[in-house]
Amino acid sequence: MALYVQKFGGTSVGSIERIGVVADKVKSFRDQGHDVVVVVSAMSGETNRLLALASEISKKPTPRELDALVSTGEQVTIALLSMALNERGCPAKSYTGGQIKILTDSAFTKARIQHIDVDSIRSDLKTGKVVVVAGFQGVDPEGNITTLGRGGSDTTGVALAAALSADECQIYTDVDGVYTTDPRVEPRARRLDKITFDEMLEMASQGSKVLQIRSVEFAGKYNVPLRVLSSFTEGRGTLISLEDEDPMEQPVISGIAFNRDEAKITVLGVPDIPGVASRILGPVSAANIEVDMIVQNIASDKTTDFTFTVHRNDYDKVLKVVEQVAEDLGAREVKGDNTICKVSIVGVGMRSHAGVASKMFDTLAAESINIQMISTSEIKVAVVIAEKYLELAVRSLHSAFGLDSEPTEE
Amino acid sequence: MALYVQKFGGTSVGSIERIGVVADKVKSFRDQGHDVVVVVSAMSGETNRLLALASEISKKPTPRELDALVSTGEQVTIALLSMALNERGCPAKSYTGGQIKILTDSAFTKARIQHIDVDSIRSDLKTGKVVVVAGFQGVDPEGNITTLGRGGSDTTGVALAAALSADECQIYTDVDGVYTTDPRVEPRARRLDKITFDEMLEMASQGSKVLQIRSVEFAGKYNVPLRVLSSFTEGRGTLISLEDEDPMEQPVISGIAFNRDEAKITVLGVPDIPGVASRILGPVSAANIEVDMIVQNIASDKTTDFTFTVHRNDYDKVLKVVEQVAEDLGAREVKGDNTICKVSIVGVGMRSHAGVASKMFDTLAAESINIQMISTSEIKVAVVIAEKYLELAVRSLHSAFGLDSEPTEE
Repeated sequence: MALYVQKFGGTSVGSIERIGVVADKVKSFRDQGHDVVVVVSAMSGETNRLLALASEISKKPTPRELDALVSTGEQVTIALLSMALNERGCPAKSYTGGQIKILTDSAFTKARIQHIDVDSIRSDLKTGKVVVVAGFQGVDPEGNITTLGRGGSDTTGVALAAALSADECQIYTDVDGVYTTDPRVEPRARRLDKITFDEMLEMASQGSKVLQIRSVEFAGKYNVPLRVLSSFTEGRGTLISLEDEDPMEQPVISGIAFNRDEAKITVLGVPDIPGVASRILGPVSAANIEVDMIVQNIASDKTTDFTFTVHRNDYDKVLKVVEQVAEDLGAREVKGDNTICKVSIVGVGMRSHAGVASKMFDTLAAESINIQMISTSEIKVAVVIAEKYLELAVRSLHSAFGLDSEPTEE
Repeated sequence: MALYVQKFGGTSVGSIERIGVVADKVKSFRDQGHDVVVVVSAMSGETNRLLALASEISKKPTPRELDALVSTGEQVTIALLSMALNERGCPAKSYTGGQIKILTDSAFTKARIQHIDVDSIRSDLKTGKVVVVAGFQGVDPEGNITTLGRGGSDTTGVALAAALSADECQIYTDVDGVYTTDPRVEPRARRLDKITFDEMLEMASQGSKVLQIRSVEFAGKYNVPLRVLSSFTEGRGTLISLEDEDPMEQPVISGIAFNRDEAKITVLGVPDIPGVASRILGPVSAANIEVDMIVQNIASDKTTDFTFTVHRNDYDKVLKVVEQVAEDLGAREVKGDNTICKVSIVGVGMRSHAGVASKMFDTLAAESINIQMISTSEIKVAVVIAEKYLELAVRSLHSAFGLDSEPTEE
């Protein structure tokens, strides 16, 4: 008998019929004797409908009122799902973020959870009820309704699982797990039975959009086993947890992540003096542009070359900012390229295996793919290459690191 | 400088455009220096949309969850109206029933208000804010969301006005006040400048649907001056308050109310023994049928005739119930008629004027209208007549009691 927190997203509860499917699924867990806490998002389309109403009223709606407005979306779903469960003879009770007391700070539209009061959930579970909680929302110390920002329902699920010391937080979504890479690029990609928090974080930040990064961070921090499953098909999904104790069990590489929407900017001939990096990146971040990779070459001739990448949408904006800065700095030239992409290999196994990076470079070289930038972490090697080589790079790496083989069934 | 509670119903906030009109109206009061607390309903159609979702899930949805669901309707409106006010430079803050703590009992879908915590409203008003409160909803001592039942937003408005000792509770609706009778029946009907709580209660219970009876009772009990106005046109509306101290100021009759949807049932030849009335009406009320007028004639021959009226929709159902009862009682016969109507004259002035009832009967006799039943209260005389005479009766009484004349402007 376990305690599960199960989170269902907007498409999983997008219609009365689908809410019924979710109710059946939850009931089947309950019937097996498990305790179940369900976290739901707004029905798909509802949040956008509400935001559209607000934008008809104001270009910059009051954030406090925006949260009061948007939070009704999840409230509708918790009530409907609880009704559907009760209708199936499975006693259920709904809670808004304010009712269960998901305490957050007062940063409207992007609040962070500070504490969850689980007493009422525990006593409901004891009486055999399924508890249905509105995701994405909370309440600040003054009782104002807050929201956690888009995708925040995953965070609600993980935070609840942590507060309740749940056995597993199950995130139901429209994919049936985490894959070695995107199956649309490499048809031989396979679902991973398990992956570590760290790997999942690297996969997510490298462009694999299965889970919100924040919820994975949270799960890792509180060691909440996270399982990604499909709400439409049966299956065991992918378990995201701490790494196995026996490093021999770890595959060297778990997956290949990639990101198409990149652009790079290089400032050539920058004087090699302290503070140059911040003098270049300060104005970029002041312009609200997020920087991804940063590379600075070893100085020669008392000047250096400084390169970084940004989201492709910010390319024109960042060029303007940097050209001004380069002039001020007396740099030689600014170059940019918005036809690049990033490909990363991710795996905790690479810690104990030398030569992973060089195997990656060899593989790309064998396909005559030129590497423009390299960035590494303990469990990741990322390279920037021309966008036209993306599929070729992903497929050849997928094969070179032995990911094409059949998954081992546990 | 006064404190107004202003309540706007579903049609008044039925679109973003109309919410803008309401915001303009509220702001103009605020700009005059008045304190304003606004109570709003769900946008028209929204409550029915939510109820339809629930009925797709269950024929008998869990009442607690129904309230959690339906209460989102008003929450959307308070957020949108507050945004619209802020957008106009009129600082505003929204509160759900749970946030402001409108404490109710736990009778889901038909809860009653027990207490309102007005501290946060007062401190918001002090800082110059307009306070926007969700009507129709509250929270029980356990923190469950409750609703007051249909039309409950009027009650919220009156209860808030009472708790705040407001100078006036203004109910904005789609009519511009209370009329001497329904203008669709008598085009010479005129708007009343004022009317007493008691008269309004009789008008409402006799079929005039401007306000919910419960909110009028509430206003009378706490002596909250109530004003009915149109949210679409300018005007002073009708003030509902305690009666003037000088009875000479009171018109004899304030209005003519009527109700088409009536049916009557007569049990003839009932044994005249104690307990007969309850033996007839007990099963009727057990069948959940509401009884309106009840008349029992003086006994002759040790038997009596017993007549009562019900809503026309209940006619077939009540006949079946009563025929069984009549057989058990040994009554002679059961007769029914579902082509009747009720017409009432209402006015506090009739207390001090003899002959009002006889003037009514004379007027009807002059038109050869046969009176089938009579029922009186201190400030009302109601008669049951054949439905075909309804318009004729209303018009002749309207004229006979001098209601056709022009309203006296104050």
